[in-house]
Amino acid sequence: MSKLDQLNEVQLSYIAGFLDGNGSIVNQIVRAKDRKFKHTIRVSVNYHQKTKRHWFMIKLKKMLGEGSLRKKNDGTSQLTITGFKSVKRHLEKLKPFLHLKKDLAGLTLNIIEDYEKVNTKASFLEVCKKIDKTANYTDGKKRVHTFASVNIFLDQAVETEKSN
Amino acid sequence: MSKLDQLNEVQLSYIAGFLDGNGSIVNQIVRAKDRKFKHTIRVSVNYHQKTKRHWFMIKLKKMLGEGSLRKKNDGTSQLTITGFKSVKRHLEKLKPFLHLKKDLAGLTLNIIEDYEKVNTKASFLEVCKKIDKTANYTDGKKRVHTFASVNIFLDQAVETEKSN
Repeated sequence: MSKLDQLNEVQLSYIAGFLDGNGSIVNQIVRAKDRKFKHTIRVSVNYHQKTKRHWFMIKLKKMLGEGSLRKKNDGTSQLTITGFKSVKRHLEKLKPFLHLKKDLAGLTLNIIEDYEKVNTKASFLEVCKKIDKTANYTDGKKRVHTFASVNIFLDQAVETEKSN
Repeated sequence: MSKLDQLNEVQLSYIAGFLDGNGSIVNQIVRAKDRKFKHTIRVSVNYHQKTKRHWFMIKLKKMLGEGSLRKKNDGTSQLTITGFKSVKRHLEKLKPFLHLKKDLAGLTLNIIEDYEKVNTKASFLEVCKKIDKTANYTDGKKRVHTFASVNIFLDQAVETEKSN
């Protein structure tokens, strides 16, 4: 049983409010040379706070029972939940209590589920498309890898193989 | 009965999490020429969000049943609860569910209570001292009026009166 299972609705609702107010749910496509499609996906849930209130991040980590906590150079502390299993458990628990990030949480769960079933290039590209869609819900920076860039990359890889 | 009284613990806890994550509780000393001590105090609870998610601020305002909502020039929306009565009701409801801002909420309630009993210069200055203390809990800008500045001001006012 995970620590999250021990939290009651009032506690989960607090965490959902805090995540809505100040956290982020990140879905990324990243390069991974050893993978079939030369890319993989990375999902994470992040909580932020000024490092002068680091004590609260320690408390939050204890409540959640997981996450990696670090002090960043910009004077903030960040608690990150990463990995499909952890993020899935996390979002499944919090989603009923989220308002602002409810749809993004749903889309992220959907991406994790789809990614676990990926076996063809087409199905991988479908996941990439959904990751592009998450940008509508976030204030993130410009993405390095997108459906379009992965699509071009994989086409070129096929060309290179053919010509060799 | 205020709208806040109709919220259950799960809803109050969500709002507390959102306030902890992204809101602010502000205590200020402001100039007020027509007041006995030429200053008054202003307290407010503020919720912030990018204006592209203004819909959520409308929803939050509806949940809270009060507050003044405005779109700022910096691309954010701000919902402000102000006035002793409203802030008091607000913080009394949320305090049990707050973590990060629990002490600040307590101090603010204390300031409101003390201010309502102010009748002497000394008791007004005591309230100013408490307002200075709230700066320990916030990331606010440099304060214009503080215990020290009000103290000097009121001393000088007495001098001026004497010399007239």
